[in-house]
This record gives sequence, structure tokens and C-alpha cells, in this order.
Amino acid sequence: MQITRPTLLLDERIAKRNISRMANKAKLTNTIFRPHFKTHFSSEIGEWYREQGVNCCTVSSMEMASYFSKAGWENITIAFPFNRHELPEILELSSKSTINLVIEDQDTLDYLIQNSTERLNYFLKIDVGTGRTGLNANSDLEHLIVQHDKINFIGFLGHAGHAYRSRNNSTIKEVYRDTFQILKELKAKYQRYNPIISYGDTPTCSVIDRFDDIDEIRPGNFIFYDWMQYNITSCSFDDIAVCMAVPIVAKHKDRNEIVIHGGAVHFSKDYIEIDSKKTFGKLVALTNDGWEEYSQDCHLERLSQEHGILKVSDNELFDKLKVGDIVGIIPIHSCLAANLMGSYLTLTGNRILQMPKNTYL
Amino acid sequence: MQITRPTLLLDERIAKRNISRMANKAKLTNTIFRPHFKTHFSSEIGEWYREQGVNCCTVSSMEMASYFSKAGWENITIAFPFNRHELPEILELSSKSTINLVIEDQDTLDYLIQNSTERLNYFLKIDVGTGRTGLNANSDLEHLIVQHDKINFIGFLGHAGHAYRSRNNSTIKEVYRDTFQILKELKAKYQRYNPIISYGDTPTCSVIDRFDDIDEIRPGNFIFYDWMQYNITSCSFDDIAVCMAVPIVAKHKDRNEIVIHGGAVHFSKDYIEIDSKKTFGKLVALTNDGWEEYSQDCHLERLSQEHGILKVSDNELFDKLKVGDIVGIIPIHSCLAANLMGSYLTLTGNRILQMPKNTYL
Repeated sequence: MQITRPTLLLDERIAKRNISRMANKAKLTNTIFRPHFKTHFSSEIGEWYREQGVNCCTVSSMEMASYFSKAGWENITIAFPFNRHELPEILELSSKSTINLVIEDQDTLDYLIQNSTERLNYFLKIDVGTGRTGLNANSDLEHLIVQHDKINFIGFLGHAGHAYRSRNNSTIKEVYRDTFQILKELKAKYQRYNPIISYGDTPTCSVIDRFDDIDEIRPGNFIFYDWMQYNITSCSFDDIAVCMAVPIVAKHKDRNEIVIHGGAVHFSKDYIEIDSKKTFGKLVALTNDGWEEYSQDCHLERLSQEHGILKVSDNELFDKLKVGDIVGIIPIHSCLAANLMGSYLTLTGNRILQMPKNTYL
Repeated sequence: MQITRPTLLLDERIAKRNISRMANKAKLTNTIFRPHFKTHFSSEIGEWYREQGVNCCTVSSMEMASYFSKAGWENITIAFPFNRHELPEILELSSKSTINLVIEDQDTLDYLIQNSTERLNYFLKIDVGTGRTGLNANSDLEHLIVQHDKINFIGFLGHAGHAYRSRNNSTIKEVYRDTFQILKELKAKYQRYNPIISYGDTPTCSVIDRFDDIDEIRPGNFIFYDWMQYNITSCSFDDIAVCMAVPIVAKHKDRNEIVIHGGAVHFSKDYIEIDSKKTFGKLVALTNDGWEEYSQDCHLERLSQEHGILKVSDNELFDKLKVGDIVGIIPIHSCLAANLMGSYLTLTGNRILQMPKNTYL
């Protein structure tokens, strides 16, 4: 395949293996596998999940819910605090697909009780330690539980976002243990409502062996992984399924820097710090059947709108890389890179499209 | 107008005033005004420039060049180091529009000499102190100057990206003085080739009064400005032409945090530091005819993919803001937010579309 400008490569074989591994782990404990689709945004990739027996999914916006409902997904959780302004659209959608909302305050619940005209399920969002959204598990939640025709409590939903602060398997497992404990106690405390516990984040779902007593998992990023997940220790290098192919457009010997066409409009500006240095992506070599690591470590050090700056401290590698070469960058955050790129090029040369974005009028 | 989810508002009146002010300043000194279109990405907004007599533009990618050529722009500079893989497309485009490239190395120039079949103009990119791309102005540039039918040197191009490190008018003016000096000396040294000097960045072009002896300017961001430019002191609050309208979806009294639907997929993840704290955007109130500052200062403190977290230290403001309210966020970097949103909603209710993105293949 002829690549001329920034292109998001997808190794279909790795992505399908990642899906299959997670699906099989969920099957071990009869855990519902409700993958988050905010990583790939693609109905075609959604089919790869269906091939593994998956029949429900998670999304993070109304637009995504509409898109995947049209693509035949009949049970969708919108894992984002419910936005009352979108109720008319949600009601319309609920005539086609079962929609599960996420709620975390009385006022919003009251709004739904008064205004819902179709059966809408909801989870209560629990803050399991991340400190982003969610209710305190120790507070009284009884008044937030309603089960009737138009609005129906189905369980507790947690997302251990703080697992992203880990840099080794044992702290990830600790996060899982603590989170599981919180959700398990809630399930016991409110058992008369028969709640399920829904749990999700790629680091913990990747690292633990079994989901005993977890009713449902919702990881998303694991289908592709990325350089952040690698550094969290959620995955090995060989599990990473996406890589941005980019042309080298300039070299600066005086400061050992190489400029690529690949910037914030391709990668977004998420970064991680490795040895106190910001890193926006990892340089790899493109090969006939994918990509591989160079023996020397090299990272994207700065990004502007279209430019990326590679710091190539190793002189041998610096000399080897030429203006006009196409190299690979493992993105820091594959969800954001995928969202920006809008499509994928598989290693067998197929273009896979995503949902149209921001079509809201 | 009814806003239900993240929507990029555009105050057309302010944007047109920003264009008119810059166009008039350029006219004072007969300086060519070649605005950068990588901020707005829209042929409809391009017409606002034409109304001010502008007939040439700057872009940062091949796709943008194609789009604006189709929209009738007959003289386009691609202000990004030339990517040889795109030569076939550039040659095709050059039959419709005059294309000016940017080059900074012998190898790429040789490639063009051997392979160009249409007349392509080029600038030599000069590093005026930013340290991103460009040639050292003190090095010998003679061997990089070619003027013939197929490849034709037209001048020196500089971009004072380091002006973005300024936080007051006087350092911005210093950057301008130094940059101007570098470009002026180059023009004198190579006068036998009759080069023009092309200069551009929003901070300096906004702050200085006159462009004496500058042949051409290429600012882009100034049409919208943003919270970064405000902090650089490039603009006043009233010059900012875009604002993201977002719904409040959760409140957390225990930590004085408010959660909005507005994250990295709407703003990107550019930030600035104010008093050593990361800031991803500034909270404003939406009004009947636009937006205005709250008396209390409040910023977006964290962003994840769809969530934004506002730190609302002031209790009065915290209590005033309710779940379900639509508030405004002045983006840190309007170019990146615009790119992600794909369209604008004007204050008079018109939807303005951008170029389709990443349609490659």
C-alpha cells in the first residue's frame, strides 16, 4: 500500500485477538461483555464483536448511541451522566433499542420521572475512587432508586479511571480489589432491587484473570491499546493494534530533531511522562507486515497543530532516518487519535470508516 | 436557538471585525495579507476575507489546499515542509491554482528539480528563533536558490512561534523586532533573486502597529483568538469570536467541582498554565447575544475524552450553576477546537460547515 500522509494503520489480526481474549475471559464467569465503542467509533469493527457473541455495547454520547442503534445494536448503555436536553432523542431511540442511562443526582432523576414516556433503564454511577463523577458509595442511595414502567433502576456502574495512574500490575490489581469491594457491598446492601454491577476500564480488565461476581464489564481501549496502556502495563507491545504512519519532512542535526507530518490534529495532545519527560508517541519502524520497535528508544517530544518533533538522541538512528521516509508512531491515546483520523487503513489495504462526527444541526 | 450538547458558537460580527482590522493594518503598508486558513477550515468563512479584498491564502496540508482551491482560491501557500509523496497531487492542483511550497533542505529541492512538471513556487523556510523547523539564517543559502520554469524560489518565510511564550506586549514586540531583522537582512543579502519576506503569527501581527518593509503576513488564529491568545496579550476578551456551549451534567459539592459534557474530543488537550495550574478553558456565561465573563474566575481543570471538570472555588458561583444549565467555555486553542467540532453555530442561528476531514482514500 502507498502511504503519502498521516494514516492510522490498524492490525486487524491483533484487534480481533484482543477482542477474543477479553470475550473469552468474560465467558469464564458468565460476565456480560458490554464493550465500550468510544475507542473505535465504527459499525464495521462492531461486527468483530458480534462474531464473538457480543450483543450489547457501551457508548459515551447520544450521537454514538444513534449511530450504533442504526447499525443494529439493540442494547446500548450511554455511560455518561444523563443530559436532560437529549431526552427527546433518547426517547425516540428507545423505540428501537433498549437504552440504559447513567444518573447520579436526584434532580435529574426527578426530571426523568416527570418526563420519560418510554421505558428507560438507568444505572447509578458510583465514584469508585477516581474522583471524576459518581455518587459516594457510603451515602444513602435509597432515594435514588426507582423501578417502574418509565424509569427503571438496574444497577450500579463504576469506572476505575484511577487505574490509569498505575505503572505496574500489582497496583492495577489493588485498584480492582478495592473497586470490586465497593461494588460488591453495594450489591449486597441493595439486593432487594436486584441490581447488577457494571464495571469497566481497560487496565484492570486486562490485568486480572477472572471477573468472579462481576455481572458486567465495559472496557473499550483494549481493542487497540496504545503507548499509555503499554506504560500502565495493561498490555505488551505485541497487543497494540494501531500505529500512525507519518512522513518525515525535515531533519535538524544541530539538535538531533526530526520533524514529521503528524500533530495535534492527528494525535490530539494527550501525553505521558517517562523519566519526567513528556512523550506524545513512540517511534517505530514500518515493516512489510506491520511495525516493529527500533533497537533505540525514541519518542515524540513536542506537537503543534500539524508538526511533530522526534528527539532522536542516538546518532546512528538519526542518520538512518531520511526526509521522505514513512515511519510509524504508536499513539499515546488511541481513542483520541482514532476520533481525529475518522478512518483506519488495515494492513491488508482495506479502509474502515467511522461514524460521521459532529453532524448535529 | 436551542442547544442540547457541545456546540461551537461563533460570533460572526467579532470574527469579521478581526479580519477587517488585520486587513486594514496590512493595507497601510501595502503588505500582502495571506491569512492562514488552518484556524477556520471553512470556504464560507473564506468568503469573509474576500469581502476585505483578500485573494490569497495559507494552508498547512495538501487536503486543505485542495479544498480551498476548489472553493476558488487561486493562490495558495502550503506553509508546511514539502512532503514529496504529495507531489502528484500538488502538480494536479497547480493547473488550477498557483501553489507556493515551503522547502528547507537540498535533498527535497533536488527531488523537485528532477520531478516537477508544472511551475511550482517555493519559499525557503527560515528558523527565526522558534527552533521547530527552518534553516539557520546565517548559513549559506545560495545553493538552495533555484529560479526556473518548474521550480521557482520566491522568498523567505518565517513563523515566530516563540511569540507564544510571551505574556506581555513588550516581549511580543521584541520577538517581532528580532524576527524582522533576520528576514530583512536575508532580503538584502539575496536581493539579486528579488525575494519577498513572508511573516506570520497571530501574537506579533496583532500587537504591532505597522508592517513596514514586510512584504507579506500570514496570521491565522486572530480571526477567532482564544484563551491562550488572551493570556499571551494578543487580544482583549471582546476580540474572542468563538465559545463552546456545553451542558452541565453533574455537580460535586464536596470538592467544588462541576462536570460538563465537553472533553478532549471537543477541545483537544492543549492547555496553558496560569499561576502554575493547568487550564483547559475558561468558564463564561451565555447571554442572549453571546457570552460574558462571570465576576468570579473559573477554569476547566481537567479533561478526559468526553468529560470536562470545572473547579468552582467560589461558593456563590458553585451554587448558581445547576445541572442542566448550558454554559460557555472559551477554548484554549480555537484552531484545535474548531478542527474537532467540524462546524460552527453563529449567534444568529446559522450553521457554518468546514471542509470534510481525513477523506484520504
